[in-house]
Amino acid sequence: MNSIIFQPIGVIHSPHKKLEQIPIQPVFARGIQGTIDIFPEFYEGLADLDQFSHIYLFFHFHESNQTKLRLKPYLQDKLRGIFATRAPHRPNKLGMSLVKLTKIEDGTLFIEDVDILDSTPLLDIKPFIKRFDIQENVRSGWQDAVTDAEAAERGYRDYAKKPKS
Amino acid sequence: MNSIIFQPIGVIHSPHKKLEQIPIQPVFARGIQGTIDIFPEFYEGLADLDQFSHIYLFFHFHESNQTKLRLKPYLQDKLRGIFATRAPHRPNKLGMSLVKLTKIEDGTLFIEDVDILDSTPLLDIKPFIKRFDIQENVRSGWQDAVTDAEAAERGYRDYAKKPKS
Repeated sequence: MNSIIFQPIGVIHSPHKKLEQIPIQPVFARGIQGTIDIFPEFYEGLADLDQFSHIYLFFHFHESNQTKLRLKPYLQDKLRGIFATRAPHRPNKLGMSLVKLTKIEDGTLFIEDVDILDSTPLLDIKPFIKRFDIQENVRSGWQDAVTDAEAAERGYRDYAKKPKS
Repeated sequence: MNSIIFQPIGVIHSPHKKLEQIPIQPVFARGIQGTIDIFPEFYEGLADLDQFSHIYLFFHFHESNQTKLRLKPYLQDKLRGIFATRAPHRPNKLGMSLVKLTKIEDGTLFIEDVDILDSTPLLDIKPFIKRFDIQENVRSGWQDAVTDAEAAERGYRDYAKKPKS
């Protein structure tokens, strides 16, 4: 099948300058703010987006230079199939984050709960829509076996670590 | 910025052979079944995925041959910015669907609630994870102004239309 070629539509800015310090999902990045500079040729496409409280960002894991079909996810010390994880080292290095949108000004989006590396190329934005995106009776596999406390401990990684007293 | 090149990891099969007959989101495609043939070189990456009841599919809107920065979404007769919609004619033709996963057998995924065109190239799979993906206090902009009845009427499009008595 043919290759598919995408072009960035903007750049994501965040306080996360190092891969190893990024909280692993937006839920562990509560309150962390970032911005997105959309390229001017796409400004028109942002109309009506500021009515949405939450948006999905799709981006390129631009610092992932390897592919692993099985790996140990950050939240658990067991090998898992890559498609059963959100890890970056996937066959196509497509990242997704669900973040809060607080404001749009002159083509800059202000976002919260940011778990994305600074300078990441943005590929697409989709609105989070209650009617479509909230599911019931969900079974989340190995993730369900990770307790909330354990997830929090591992999920924040080095970001929220305080010096031990 | 550089182009990003993705390669399909499989092909999605569905009963939807014509674009104009696809229900516009999985919620309007309840019970519609499909399959995904993953290419053998990626089988290993499917490990543990069958523990998840819901998965996100990321695919190429391969029949979209135009880009519109504003358009009228299927659910409403008003022009909206493309990023405030899920419509296919986006700058990067990346589709996302949240579907139910019922079974995996020999590299074939059996899925339900399928709103995807037959023969669509699949780019990635990510598990739906309760802890990360269910949000509260969501505001869904123009979508909130569409009533459930209206959404259902428009969302099913021609798929579920029965002859009028």
